[in-house]
Amino acid sequence: MTNTSSSAFPARGSTADIEQGLTFQPKFDADGLIGAIVTDMTTGAVLMFAWMNSEALRLSLDTGIAHFWSRSRKRLWRKGEESGNTLAIREARVDCDQDVVWLRVSVGGAGATCHTGTKSCFYRSIVAGSGEPIRLQRDDL
Amino acid sequence: MTNTSSSAFPARGSTADIEQGLTFQPKFDADGLIGAIVTDMTTGAVLMFAWMNSEALRLSLDTGIAHFWSRSRKRLWRKGEESGNTLAIREARVDCDQDVVWLRVSVGGAGATCHTGTKSCFYRSIVAGSGEPIRLQRDDL
Repeated sequence: MTNTSSSAFPARGSTADIEQGLTFQPKFDADGLIGAIVTDMTTGAVLMFAWMNSEALRLSLDTGIAHFWSRSRKRLWRKGEESGNTLAIREARVDCDQDVVWLRVSVGGAGATCHTGTKSCFYRSIVAGSGEPIRLQRDDL
Repeated sequence: MTNTSSSAFPARGSTADIEQGLTFQPKFDADGLIGAIVTDMTTGAVLMFAWMNSEALRLSLDTGIAHFWSRSRKRLWRKGEESGNTLAIREARVDCDQDVVWLRVSVGGAGATCHTGTKSCFYRSIVAGSGEPIRLQRDDL
């Protein structure tokens, strides 16, 4: 377990309550994590996908600045803490079964979200019908 | 393991190759799954997030119609096979470390992606500063 404080959020109710209710009751997986999709508030481009433990989710909602749980470094991570490319949350949404959140953000600093220096982590498209192995095409968003 | 055929994709190379290379070498997690973000090709809205095993990913890329792995039903799932709301993949992208794919789609049938009947699974926003428990607001996309 990477997280022991999921009790900071309400216990999960019935399926109807989870899907149709108006109480935020996020579901954390067996590792105590919930997935977060991050898109650019202006362009709509998907910038990154990362994981949050309950502390990261709580901090993100309380401060309006995206925090994540780094699975590789096994620590809480305020996105942009080193690069300055912080993510200001303009809107946060949750899906039907409340096990994924979607953050619409404005990127601070130099505007790069990816650790490789690109604006979006999704800087390559998958080329349909390109044979084996399947090829990628570089086309930054 | 929910998947035993990840060998259908190339073995993973070096970090540089994964991040900067032009060969698709998806990373499946310990359960043999890779996450897929689905957005609307026209509006850019995030419609859903689901999981694929290697067979679902392969079928999605080969047919241009999104297939997933249902973790609850433990079976391959062609999205819309019952509802008719199939997802035609207009563009597929992959992130820096190739462990998440992003599908930009056109929704067939009645245009509902969510099993609850809404266009997007993300039909509720999280209300900042709404106290405890945190409140959601219904505002369909």
